Amino acid sequence: MDETFRWLEINPACCNGRGWADTLYPFDRLPPGRGIEKYERLWQKSHLAAGIALVFETDSETIGIRWSQHEFEEEPGSFETRSANGFDLYAFDEIDGDWRWAGLTSGIRVSEADVFTLKRGHPLGRRRYLLYFPMQKTVKQAWLGINERAFFRFEPPRKDPPLLYYGTSLINGAFSSRPGLSLAARLAREFDCPLLNFGFAGSAEMQIEVAELIAELAPAAILVDVLQNLDLSLLPGRVVPFLKTVAAAHPDKPILVLENAMALAAFWRDGGGKAQMYWWNVYRRLFRKVRRDFPNLHYVSGLELMGIDRETGSDSVHANDIGFDRMFRALAGALRRVSPQFKPAVSAAEKRRRYLKHFE
Amino acid sequence: MDETFRWLEINPACCNGRGWADTLYPFDRLPPGRGIEKYERLWQKSHLAAGIALVFETDSETIGIRWSQHEFEEEPGSFETRSANGFDLYAFDEIDGDWRWAGLTSGIRVSEADVFTLKRGHPLGRRRYLLYFPMQKTVKQAWLGINERAFFRFEPPRKDPPLLYYGTSLINGAFSSRPGLSLAARLAREFDCPLLNFGFAGSAEMQIEVAELIAELAPAAILVDVLQNLDLSLLPGRVVPFLKTVAAAHPDKPILVLENAMALAAFWRDGGGKAQMYWWNVYRRLFRKVRRDFPNLHYVSGLELMGIDRETGSDSVHANDIGFDRMFRALAGALRRVSPQFKPAVSAAEKRRRYLKHFE
Repeated sequence: MDETFRWLEINPACCNGRGWADTLYPFDRLPPGRGIEKYERLWQKSHLAAGIALVFETDSETIGIRWSQHEFEEEPGSFETRSANGFDLYAFDEIDGDWRWAGLTSGIRVSEADVFTLKRGHPLGRRRYLLYFPMQKTVKQAWLGINERAFFRFEPPRKDPPLLYYGTSLINGAFSSRPGLSLAARLAREFDCPLLNFGFAGSAEMQIEVAELIAELAPAAILVDVLQNLDLSLLPGRVVPFLKTVAAAHPDKPILVLENAMALAAFWRDGGGKAQMYWWNVYRRLFRKVRRDFPNLHYVSGLELMGIDRETGSDSVHANDIGFDRMFRALAGALRRVSPQFKPAVSAAEKRRRYLKHFE
Repeated sequence: MDETFRWLEINPACCNGRGWADTLYPFDRLPPGRGIEKYERLWQKSHLAAGIALVFETDSETIGIRWSQHEFEEEPGSFETRSANGFDLYAFDEIDGDWRWAGLTSGIRVSEADVFTLKRGHPLGRRRYLLYFPMQKTVKQAWLGINERAFFRFEPPRKDPPLLYYGTSLINGAFSSRPGLSLAARLAREFDCPLLNFGFAGSAEMQIEVAELIAELAPAAILVDVLQNLDLSLLPGRVVPFLKTVAAAHPDKPILVLENAMALAAFWRDGGGKAQMYWWNVYRRLFRKVRRDFPNLHYVSGLELMGIDRETGSDSVHANDIGFDRMFRALAGALRRVSPQFKPAVSAAEKRRRYLKHFE
């Protein structure tokens, strides 16, 4: 097996998932000089590479990755190692006509000399690959390792309208088991559209500057899923101006406004559900004020968003893969209902037929 | 908040999940002197505490855990930290009338002086708790930390027939995000029965000695899910005698014999699905030979056991929480179909009604 690499630096301009070209650091998700810097935590989270993704074509037998990171003071956290730190690889499967999971880096990067192997083993011929960046790291530079004599081509980023998912730590990756299983990435694959991941852990607080930035983009649809970060005291001042700004800028695009799924820990508090319901109701009333003028706004209840069995996490508030799998199905359904644009390229029956072809 | 602990050693005799009392080490899953020792890897895996679970009642505000382990040479592996190393706590929820997740240890044990907190924060009154041991550790001794003046009572292990799940590394915990989300534990909670977890990573090879051990137990039902560990060359010699021995010993108990869900990596091999199908068919033919005499044997196809989207893992062969969630639903359905004993204590509609009560 050929494991000799030549290293190709990943050009940020080739990556999907970037809303602006003129960012402070190459893989940043928000631009400088637009008022975000004053929200220290949000500004810091905007440097994380969540949702950055690259498509390339190669016949390399082995694929590696090396990368360096900005040395910020990172928050200590229980962010699962491989979702936070891993690069995650999908390959295009001709039988399914879709991206299928192909490899994940393991281990923690210590220096940029560390080489991680994304794919080894069985040669897959010349093929397109989709590479997701880590959800919780500030990637400074990254290099793809390709066999010396292999064919290689970067695919330019997509120009069609992206799905824009504005959310909290959950959308910032906490805690899918790998980046490709993060909720926003799954929705984008399902509907075959590019993605702008606006998941900002602990800092998705409907700051008006974020609304103004979203207003200047051209998304296919917007999901707003920030209630877990919005203290009750912030709701009256923030919700209406934020939603108005976003909805007025995109009056013909579906905008889904989500209630949070209740934090698992809250079920153990006396009156925890009632307190959550009160919080949801305040939010819903504010939503309705804006909805009158903007019928493109759609409300999504949090009550059963992750099902009812409370097996959907491993800490007080974040989701596990089960929670995200259930949210994925709920939100894919919601998008299909509100817009004819969001239908899967192939029907469920056809997906199954293709799956079974692998065994013929 | 009271975080002063008195330490109560967990008596193995109080634990569920042990098939035999006279084991070499207290939390072993197989007994010595019965021919298992000659299978070195199986014998080693039988020391792991997968499926060991303890019920206790307390009003302690904080609950801690300390533990020591046998110093075996452990296999290096990518076993997810918290499933492999964590103790996982459920509490009985009166509204749901069921166990609900309440806390998980984080971090890696270095010495037995390390104290892990399972539950802190909001007091829950006097309540029953269900504690799962780590899936991939050999627990030598463990101590529960209970507040100085708190009430405490160990609940004796259940005497009713357990669900017995004989499986590979997947059943040994690879890779649910925590022990309580392991597939066998979820099935046992669903049907409110005790569990014998016979998941032995890389060594579930239908050794006849294992069949003889299963033959002397009194399970409510048996799942046999070992095909991933059975090389084609082993099938002809092992399957028939193993299944005959188990089925003859438990002729009136449902025995589900599962095909493996195909390894994700195998989809990328030319003819990978066909090779899998061939393997399944050899297995199915052998199964049918035994089934003629034992109608209590039931076959479960692996073809769609984890769905069809191949999002069910993060390595070549093991499952993630999504894979297990889907297997859980498939197997809970299969058990319900084959035996009237396996119906959930409450209907789906009643479960939902109770869930909604949290918000009233």
